Amino acid sequence: MIKFSINKTAFQNALKITKQAIGSKVTIPALTKLKIEVEEKGITLIGSNGQISIKNFLPADNKDASMLISGTGSVLLEAAFFENVVSQLPEVTLEFIEKEQKQVLLTSGKSEITLKGLDSEIYPHLQEISEGSSLKMKVKVLKEIFTETVFAVSTQENRPIFTGVHLETLSTGELKAVATDSHRMSQRLLPLEDTDLKFDVILPSKSINSFKNVFTNDEEEIEIFISGSQMLFQNETISYYSRLIEGSYPDTNRLIPNEADYTLDLVFDAAQLRHTMDRARLLTVMTTNGTVKLTVSGDSVVTTANSPEVGSVHEELTALSKEGNDLSISFNPEYLIDALKVIKAPEVRIRFISNVRPFTLQPRNEESGFVQLITPVRTN
Amino acid sequence: MIKFSINKTAFQNALKITKQAIGSKVTIPALTKLKIEVEEKGITLIGSNGQISIKNFLPADNKDASMLISGTGSVLLEAAFFENVVSQLPEVTLEFIEKEQKQVLLTSGKSEITLKGLDSEIYPHLQEISEGSSLKMKVKVLKEIFTETVFAVSTQENRPIFTGVHLETLSTGELKAVATDSHRMSQRLLPLEDTDLKFDVILPSKSINSFKNVFTNDEEEIEIFISGSQMLFQNETISYYSRLIEGSYPDTNRLIPNEADYTLDLVFDAAQLRHTMDRARLLTVMTTNGTVKLTVSGDSVVTTANSPEVGSVHEELTALSKEGNDLSISFNPEYLIDALKVIKAPEVRIRFISNVRPFTLQPRNEESGFVQLITPVRTN
Repeated sequence: MIKFSINKTAFQNALKITKQAIGSKVTIPALTKLKIEVEEKGITLIGSNGQISIKNFLPADNKDASMLISGTGSVLLEAAFFENVVSQLPEVTLEFIEKEQKQVLLTSGKSEITLKGLDSEIYPHLQEISEGSSLKMKVKVLKEIFTETVFAVSTQENRPIFTGVHLETLSTGELKAVATDSHRMSQRLLPLEDTDLKFDVILPSKSINSFKNVFTNDEEEIEIFISGSQMLFQNETISYYSRLIEGSYPDTNRLIPNEADYTLDLVFDAAQLRHTMDRARLLTVMTTNGTVKLTVSGDSVVTTANSPEVGSVHEELTALSKEGNDLSISFNPEYLIDALKVIKAPEVRIRFISNVRPFTLQPRNEESGFVQLITPVRTN
Repeated sequence: MIKFSINKTAFQNALKITKQAIGSKVTIPALTKLKIEVEEKGITLIGSNGQISIKNFLPADNKDASMLISGTGSVLLEAAFFENVVSQLPEVTLEFIEKEQKQVLLTSGKSEITLKGLDSEIYPHLQEISEGSSLKMKVKVLKEIFTETVFAVSTQENRPIFTGVHLETLSTGELKAVATDSHRMSQRLLPLEDTDLKFDVILPSKSINSFKNVFTNDEEEIEIFISGSQMLFQNETISYYSRLIEGSYPDTNRLIPNEADYTLDLVFDAAQLRHTMDRARLLTVMTTNGTVKLTVSGDSVVTTANSPEVGSVHEELTALSKEGNDLSISFNPEYLIDALKVIKAPEVRIRFISNVRPFTLQPRNEESGFVQLITPVRTN
């Protein structure tokens, strides 16, 4: 039967990571539980919501954990409750002892808490990925391409493939990450180091959003494996599994305009443009389908937005450079704000074809790898 | 017609205070508006939700506001929207110009925003208090007695008098503040400086909760006036009106036990007791009407809580002093936690009569002015 003592903070930190995969809204009741597996070599904390699964291993020789294992076994505990109990324990060390009928006695200082556990036999078997080709990437780089694309996924469940980010290894040796909700698109290309792993998958946006809470060391390198319907991100102690979205993603390259088609090329200070859009948005959110109009005429660039209920905004913008024809185009300022949020460069280049064709945004001077597309709104 | 320019930050801060009184859930549509009154001597920002009203005056010579008034008048603007617009303006200065048909043009840098306003004639007349006897108090002291009592008000609207804090000037020259929800009571006595103002009123808990956001300078002295169904808190620029709850508050003094009746007197470290209750609460919240049991037997003080669903907790407590008989008593740990939160003293004195009579809590060594009562739960 399980018996171990451990540093409370180290145990709490490990629980916090595994808990990312455990939801309260699951259809299989066993999935609200945390599975604790204790072996002589260490403790594994396992959680899953059916979509994401996390195995987090705390090795017996981890120096922060001051672990002493004197009995092995496995048990299921109510995850959220167990995490709360551990966080409230009074002393730096806690002792975990399995009693008869899967009861667990937690002792810390003068506090003794008895928890009802369940037999781990009832926990569903988690599909695992047998070793194979892998791709190594820095956590920071993965987080960057996720941030640059995931905001553009669709929130509508009727076309599931658009609720994830498409990740594809190209024959050019690059990784392509792309997301679109049909109103806007964000695509990032990233040169990869040599790898045998080839893939063409759709990773759910929810898995991407919890990724950053699981892998918190940006400088760390992690390994990526793929098998059938699962993607695995792994470091020395954490295995983070995500199911993939089934279906084939459309070719988004054909959406990106040909260089020759652009008729207007503008460069803005990204922060200034963002603030102008924030002001326009104050009015457009008061109106259904509210749009901002950008009017380029000679050297003048003006944005206007109008809400019949509350008023109007009129603002002159300074273009850092302008080449091409005059244009007047309307669009949802929300999309431009979202796009600017993920552009870290101080200047942004925006190119237009016509007032009914999507326009493109790129960070100025880093134009090859990252491109975003926004579809205008036709107005009268 | 109104015309002025003003420092954006100073104007924003003034708006923020007035906005405390403006709610979106009001039955009179005019009350979602902010009333702006511009006179030569300065600008008054007025807001009300029918329960609370705030008049905030920005004098023309306020040195932070860099105000320049060149036209006077009054207008109503949509409060939440106007505050958002002002906060997003690009420059440090904004210009406010009233146009025909109550339209307002706000200009800041290259940004021009036109807002639809309304005639201030439709704004309801706010009852005002004509000068009379007043009481002067430091903001910090008022906030303290509010904090010490307001948590104990009832949230049930069926007996409105218990949803407020009872404030009464006593013949002893003290101010009494008391709140109770019939499960617990918190009462604070405060010696007052000489004043002619005598009152016996019930101030709604909502007015107390927004008080701290309106008067942010703890060191400031404010003046309190009362007239009929209204209470007014006032400093040099802000008038904060609250309606009072009608009805007469029961005599709570008779609830406080006689010294002679106590059979057990315990002193605890307040932080230690609070943490023990936090752990007990983890289990009691999982059970309907969950209680913690405190068992005093000889030198031993033990708390236990039990939830049939999730487990149990057993903890030894250290009493710093103990006088009196043994006792075993059950109560809702939530009430003890709330009580301990407002006791700033490091040690707390708890006195008991029997396991079916309310027990009292007092900060040790400051026992005269502040007393709390908690009713136990009868268990088998």
